Formats: sequence, C-alpha cells, structure tokens
Amino acid sequence: MNKTLVNIGLIGFGTIGSGVIEIFNQNIDLIEKKVGKEVNLKKVVDLDISTDRGVEISSEKLSTDVNDILEDPEISIVIELIGGYEPARSFILKALENGKHVVTANKALLAKHWEEITAVSEKNNVRISFEASVGGGIPLLQPLNESLAANNFEGIYGIINGTANYILTKMSEEGLEFDDVLKEAQEKGYAEQDPTFDIEGHDTAQKLIILTILGFGTYVAQEKFHVEGITKITPQDIEFTSKKLKYVTKLLGITRKVGDELEVRVHPTLIPQDHLLASVNDVFNGVYMIGDSVGPVMMYGQGAGMMPTASAIVGDCIDIISNPEKEITYGPPQSQEKAIKNMAEVVSKYYIRLKALDQPGVLHKISGILSKYHISLESVNQEKNEENQSIPIFMVTHKASEKNIMDAISQIDQLPEIKAPCMLIRILED
Amino acid sequence: MNKTLVNIGLIGFGTIGSGVIEIFNQNIDLIEKKVGKEVNLKKVVDLDISTDRGVEISSEKLSTDVNDILEDPEISIVIELIGGYEPARSFILKALENGKHVVTANKALLAKHWEEITAVSEKNNVRISFEASVGGGIPLLQPLNESLAANNFEGIYGIINGTANYILTKMSEEGLEFDDVLKEAQEKGYAEQDPTFDIEGHDTAQKLIILTILGFGTYVAQEKFHVEGITKITPQDIEFTSKKLKYVTKLLGITRKVGDELEVRVHPTLIPQDHLLASVNDVFNGVYMIGDSVGPVMMYGQGAGMMPTASAIVGDCIDIISNPEKEITYGPPQSQEKAIKNMAEVVSKYYIRLKALDQPGVLHKISGILSKYHISLESVNQEKNEENQSIPIFMVTHKASEKNIMDAISQIDQLPEIKAPCMLIRILED
Repeated sequence: MNKTLVNIGLIGFGTIGSGVIEIFNQNIDLIEKKVGKEVNLKKVVDLDISTDRGVEISSEKLSTDVNDILEDPEISIVIELIGGYEPARSFILKALENGKHVVTANKALLAKHWEEITAVSEKNNVRISFEASVGGGIPLLQPLNESLAANNFEGIYGIINGTANYILTKMSEEGLEFDDVLKEAQEKGYAEQDPTFDIEGHDTAQKLIILTILGFGTYVAQEKFHVEGITKITPQDIEFTSKKLKYVTKLLGITRKVGDELEVRVHPTLIPQDHLLASVNDVFNGVYMIGDSVGPVMMYGQGAGMMPTASAIVGDCIDIISNPEKEITYGPPQSQEKAIKNMAEVVSKYYIRLKALDQPGVLHKISGILSKYHISLESVNQEKNEENQSIPIFMVTHKASEKNIMDAISQIDQLPEIKAPCMLIRILED
Repeated sequence: MNKTLVNIGLIGFGTIGSGVIEIFNQNIDLIEKKVGKEVNLKKVVDLDISTDRGVEISSEKLSTDVNDILEDPEISIVIELIGGYEPARSFILKALENGKHVVTANKALLAKHWEEITAVSEKNNVRISFEASVGGGIPLLQPLNESLAANNFEGIYGIINGTANYILTKMSEEGLEFDDVLKEAQEKGYAEQDPTFDIEGHDTAQKLIILTILGFGTYVAQEKFHVEGITKITPQDIEFTSKKLKYVTKLLGITRKVGDELEVRVHPTLIPQDHLLASVNDVFNGVYMIGDSVGPVMMYGQGAGMMPTASAIVGDCIDIISNPEKEITYGPPQSQEKAIKNMAEVVSKYYIRLKALDQPGVLHKISGILSKYHISLESVNQEKNEENQSIPIFMVTHKASEKNIMDAISQIDQLPEIKAPCMLIRILED
C-alpha cells in the first residue's frame, strides 16, 4: 500500500454507495488526518451511472466497467456494495486475487460462501472486512472478534433485522394486525415490496451465521438451523403476552453454548420487559452477548440505512489503511468448533395460544396430551365466552424439549374441539 | 516483539490483577491460538505477594521489585493495575521509555497526565492501551476511536459510574433515601468506604475526559468543567419526576458539540423513560454516542468488577500482540480541537423543587423572579397542604441558560417564604 496515497474503488452506486461517497466528500479531512495518508475514492462503478443520486462526484470517476477497478493496480481497497451472490462473488474473488483488500456489507454472500472467500483472502494476504454486514453502523463485529477476544462466549442474542423489529414494535404500540403494519412499513420504505427475506427471518439467519463464526468459531450453513419468521403473530398474542405475562415479542437470532454443542436458531421470542433487549425498538438493532469474563454486553444502533451502513464501510477502510498488515483470525480457534444441536432437542419455555370450542372437558383433553409428553404448565388463562363459541386459551409451559412440544401440539391440533392451529412462541431463557 | 513468544509483566496483584491472571490461566489456549504466538505472563509484581488471592500462580513468578518487569528486556508488554498517580505514573513512563507497550485501567492518571503519557508513548514508538479505563469490559474506546472513525460526533452521553447508578436505581425502585442506599451499597461492596469519588461525580468526570479526547480530539482538564454529584437527590425528587414527568434520574457525563464549542459536564440528569439510557440500571454502564453518519449508538455492559475489567485488559494485550505496529491516533485530528463552553452559557431545561410556606402570593413572587430572568415554565405542581406549613412546589422550565437559572434560584432562595435551598436537576436535551 502506497505510503502517501491510498486509492479506493467502489462497486455499486446505490443507496449505501451514495452514503459512502457522501462521507468521503464531507469528512475526507477527518479521515486523512486519522490515517495520516491521502485517501482518494478513485473510481465508482455501476451499470447505471447516469441517474442523479444527489451526491457530488466528478463524472470522470464514474465507469460502467468493473475492470476499471479490479484491474487497476493503483487501487488497493475495493468496496463491494452490489449485494447478492453473483456477480458480487466473482468481483470480490477477483479483487482479492489481484491483491486488493475488500470491504463489503454483503451478508448473504458471506453467510453462504464464507469459507471460499476467507480462504482466498488469506491466500492472497489481503483483508476482507465486513463490519457493515451485521448491525449496519453499530460497531459489533470488531468488538466481538477483537476487543472481547479474551472471552469464551456463552450466548449471543440479536435483534438484527430492522424491518421485523419495526413491525413488531408498531403492532405492540398500536395493537395493529401484522398485514396492516407491513403495508405501512412498505409505504414508509422500512420494508421491501417483497418483504419475505426480512419477515421470514432469512436476513436475521444470514447475520446470525456471521455472528456465530466470530463468537464461536463455528460456521453453520443456513439450512442446518431452525429459522422462523413473524408473520403468524397476532395482536392478540402481543397484547396477552405483554399485559399478562410482561413480555415483549422480538424476532431474535440466538446462538448459545449448551454443553459441548451450539444451539443456533431464529424465531420470534418473548423477552422479559425489563431485559435490555426489550427496549430495542423500531428499526433499531441490538446485539446482547454474554462472555465468560465480561458478562453481558449489548451494542445498539441503527442496523440499516444509508449513512449508518456507510459509516461502517468507511470505518473498515480506515482500519485497513491504518493496519494493512493486521493479521485477522475470525472467532476462536477452529479447535473450538462445535456441533450444532438438533432443534428437536432444544429446551425452552413456550407460550401457546389455542382456539378451542368452549365445551366441558376440552382443557382436560389438552392437559392429558401435554402430560403424556411430560410438559407441565406454568399458567393457563381461558377467556370467558358467553356465546359458547370457540375461545382462546393461553398457556405458558415450564421447560420442555422442542420435540415433545411439537409432538404434543400436533396431537392437540387434531382434537375436534380445536378450531385453528396452535400458535407457539418460545420464551427467552433466564 | 518476539515472533513466537510474548512475555507480559503485571504490576499490581489486586482484584483486577487477579482477574487478569485468572483469564490467562483459563483461556490461554484461546488467546494463543487467536494471536498465533505463545503468550507468557512472566512476572507479577506487588508489595504484598504473600496474601492468597485465590488464583493459581507459581511463586517464582511473583516479585516485590518492579524492576523485575521494567528492566527485563524480555518483557514487551506491561500491565499497570496499581492505580492512582504515583508511583503508577513513573512506572508507566519508565516502561514506555524502555520500549514496552503499556496496558492500563488507570483513568485518574490518564485524565490528568494524558499529554505527557501519550507523548512518551509516541516518542518511543510503543502503544498505551486503556480500554479498561472507561466502562470496564465494555468495548467502548476502540469502537469510538476506530470503528466509528468515519464520524464527526455530535454528542456522547455516558452512565459510567456503577456505584452512582446502583444507588439511583435502588432509590428509584424502592423509594429509599440516598444515605440508606449508600449504606447498603457499602455493605454489598458496590460502594467504597469513602464513596466521595463516585458519588460526587469525579470518577465520571475522569472517564468523560477520556471519552472527550477520543470522540472530539479535545483534552479538557477536570477543573475546567462542571462536576456535580448525586448526594442531594431525594426520594421525593425521584418519585415526582418519575411518576408525573416520566423521567429517570441518572448521573450522566455529557460532552456535546454546540456550534464551534464543546459542552462538557457531569451532573444528575433527568432522562425520558423511553430513552435507552433509562434502561441502564444497577451497576451497569451505558454510553450513548451520536455520530453524524451512524446516528445514535449505545454500548452497554458491566463498567467495573474483576472479570469484566480483566477482560478488557487481556483484550488490549491481544490487540497489541496482533498489531504491534498499529499506528494509533486518538480521536479526530487536533485541528478540530474545540473550545470548552462556559457552564454559565449552557442551555437546558430544568426541574426545580422548592420548599415554600403555603401563603398567598408565594408563587407570584417566584414567577416574578423567573420572569425577570426570561425563564418560562412548562409546568408547575403545588402539593395540597392542609396544615398551612411549608409545601413542596415542583416546576419544569423551558430552555434557559445556566446563568439565568442560577441567578434566579439564588434570589428565590432568599425569599422569606422559601424554607430550604431549591433543588435543581437538568433535563436531557431531546
């Protein structure tokens, strides 16, 4: 890397890319003094370089040819912001092979091709930095991987999808239906037109894969763990669990060590109202980590958005420019790699909502099935119903295994008195 | 630094020192694999090496002679954990001059001798690391100084004294008097026998000095800013502000940019109950920072204690071993150094509690004085009193300058109807 001038190439002139250009325009003085070198955003490549993105950039810096970056020997850092698998993967691999450091926010790619990308980066003795891939601008991966490196982690619990958190917060504050809040979120730009990725938990899962590597030294592919979204949650669930049980509903990515195994899972989770994660609202993200030395630590901030994400991208560039020779290892040593616990064996407390006919003996039948599977109840609430129609029953179980709960629920669902599939939300461990 | 073996010396075998030894004993495998080198805690020096601290260490590693560390050419990293100004300052300077990196938790020393210590470290091309000095084990200084380096900071708001936060939390939860909670905290070991340093805000001030350097590139000596403790706060204040005004009382260190100046201050502060800082309870610390790109970010965790602090100490060692050549600059470039705003010119909203005789015209006199100083009121609550004795009056002002408030209060305090000095708590800016 040149001692006095560092050239950076940016692939992808979208929202985040515009934010990156904005920061270089606004804070270049700050950045250059911080690293003690001249820093030049030399080239910005995108298929579309004619649309006005509202940021200042001289036209000679724009190109539609990615080789203007990948093959330019003067460029030592490549920022990849096109997202997705291809051509992002090929561009990143080519950049690494050409001896360039890479900065990216591409969680999907990292979660899928982690081993390939880090191997190529290591082989070519260049860095791949991705602070922006989880938690947007929140300093999260560096602290997890470096500042807290003296810790063996016991658990990581992340609210890491702003869209899902916004929807759950609004449902909770205003008592609205999921679909109505989703529509509003789409109108406000907080949710994509196709929101599947966010509301079904896939985005959370990809980010959790990255957190799991850094916290536990273990790569786990997405198909290997349980991922469940928030679409089935009703205002009724939120109201009851909030008012009667004092919980807040959050979409949580959880990785925790249980004995010699790792539990990795993504699902809606009931969190005690006085837990710090319960205060992470709207589009904000929070990641709560428990280390054996440091105890609980939480990092909080905006997990997405143009400027927060761009802040992390530029932060990574600054770190690379300041420490180009830094040797990075990801997470604890591989010798600590752990087996992933089968979801069926995961133990948890459960909130269950049933819709049953208000007939004598219904509760007796249900409790019989639960008892058969060794599931004991902490509380049962049956709402009064004067019209003898179907009524909601709310139950909270003591700890039970996932397998037992699932078997019991599937039998309960088949009872003639049960009028809709049981709703089930896992409760955060104390 | 030797490629395969790194020797570390530890000065100060107290609580934190024992925690450091404990981590090296427990997690040495993790640490060595992380840095790719053999790591050896070669020597531990203390005046008392005979007391059993409950951690395993071979007696030949113990010494009472600090030169066994400072003058040992094989030791490349010195951990200083004796605290205070001297001899800690001399030991640190000698270690730096002898080409050793230094890791310390000594906020008092850094806050006072910042310029001297960093100058000597820079001159000798070695590092001084101090993550543990603020927020114990919370990754805080590294993220502020490095991960978020692309930001110009607008404000930093820290709950950074666990003792004060524990006392305020207990007063709030249990409606107890300050003195009673302090006594309980002392019994539990959460407060020192002489608690002045914590409850009068000095500890918060020292930590704020360090945060201000890293966030704003500006060193400000403690005597240059307003520091106020929590000893005058009553259960009455906490109850009224909590129930009627929906605030939580916290001892806050605040540095924020206002125009071209910096406001630096430490005082009890009323924080809206739905602000994330309001959820930082008991002995926990939280630092809320607002960057121009990243927006609000908060770091949370245990701000003190043996293992959390030791975690940060060992984290600093790992960082030094991994990146011995890393060039560190502290905070934004010096060209950005800012003048400190005079406290008299600081503008804030205020909560005021008065104790006045319940006589006609009292409120009229008070409001006359406030009006003379251009202070308008957002709310006034006067409690009913049947016995015609002195009554409490609670007021919240709109924004007013500190000078005007202080002048007004001093006049109000002199009214014959006022039976005790006014209590004043500043309210966090929206």
